Amino acid sequence: MSSMPKVKREKILKSETLFKGKNLNLHRLTVELPSGKLFEDEIIERPSEVAIIPQISRNEIILTKQFRRGVGEILLELPSGKVKRGETILTAARRELEEETKYKAKKLEKLTETLVAPSWSTSKCTFFLARELIVDSHPRPHDPDENIEVVRLTFKKALAKVASGKIKDTKTVLGLLLAKRFFA
Amino acid sequence: MSSMPKVKREKILKSETLFKGKNLNLHRLTVELPSGKLFEDEIIERPSEVAIIPQISRNEIILTKQFRRGVGEILLELPSGKVKRGETILTAARRELEEETKYKAKKLEKLTETLVAPSWSTSKCTFFLARELIVDSHPRPHDPDENIEVVRLTFKKALAKVASGKIKDTKTVLGLLLAKRFFA
Repeated sequence: MSSMPKVKREKILKSETLFKGKNLNLHRLTVELPSGKLFEDEIIERPSEVAIIPQISRNEIILTKQFRRGVGEILLELPSGKVKRGETILTAARRELEEETKYKAKKLEKLTETLVAPSWSTSKCTFFLARELIVDSHPRPHDPDENIEVVRLTFKKALAKVASGKIKDTKTVLGLLLAKRFFA
Repeated sequence: MSSMPKVKREKILKSETLFKGKNLNLHRLTVELPSGKLFEDEIIERPSEVAIIPQISRNEIILTKQFRRGVGEILLELPSGKVKRGETILTAARRELEEETKYKAKKLEKLTETLVAPSWSTSKCTFFLARELIVDSHPRPHDPDENIEVVRLTFKKALAKVASGKIKDTKTVLGLLLAKRFFA
């Protein structure tokens, strides 16, 4: 009851898996609140993710357009994807960049790692700046189920699309702001 | 098979609710890919959220510390929360600011709205800059289950904590970068 209460850790008493899916698992946690009361909450387990900021020239970036099932819209985004089992996050970033854009990066620099929605998900995302891009001369054979469009635009134009609300994917807005200092 | 394929919308054929929880619902979508093939995927439905950047002086901000169940850690974050049924996002921002920090804002300005994880969730977050803060003279009675700490720090210090990885909650990193221009 002090005027400046201190936050306390909750004790996690139980974690029960309610659903295992292709891309996420659902768990129900039972926690003990600092008051001693028990409380149940749902959390979503997701694989770690990578997002790549591909700098194609001093003042230009590569983005992708994809249909996003969570919101039912086509969005303009940074290349990104899940880290597969056995991959390092660096390997995943390299693979996702190549798969989604058909470019390889000679330089791939980690910028930062963030928690996507820590109150209800385990999801993490690591951001990489990709530079010295070269066209992949041996791209994988075309996958008929691939549904992605590669867009090259000035960094300035990308920032304008953030300001106007045309770019609204969180990782993309954040990645652009994090990489701003690298662009002319 | 053109060298510059265009992205296409997927047709959502079916949406089946697998779980209804306190804070999220889980749906299984069946979609038709552009190739005609059917594909199943899981998505998480969440209420909209608000995040507030409380500017307490020209160069200081209010943050909160909370235990976050998704990652099992105490995190330093912007005040934030879910929009309740029947509330506008502005009302929710006002309520969350007051509940979490005990401050009221004379000015509450919408900065932007983003999609939290659009490939697998409906979740949206709207950012507000809160200014002309005054201490709430009639705060709600103390809730023994409330587990939150209010922290006042310079904006510069908050940015240093982003750079050092001490602040790693996505909405907080993004909100600070979005509001940078308002601070001395």
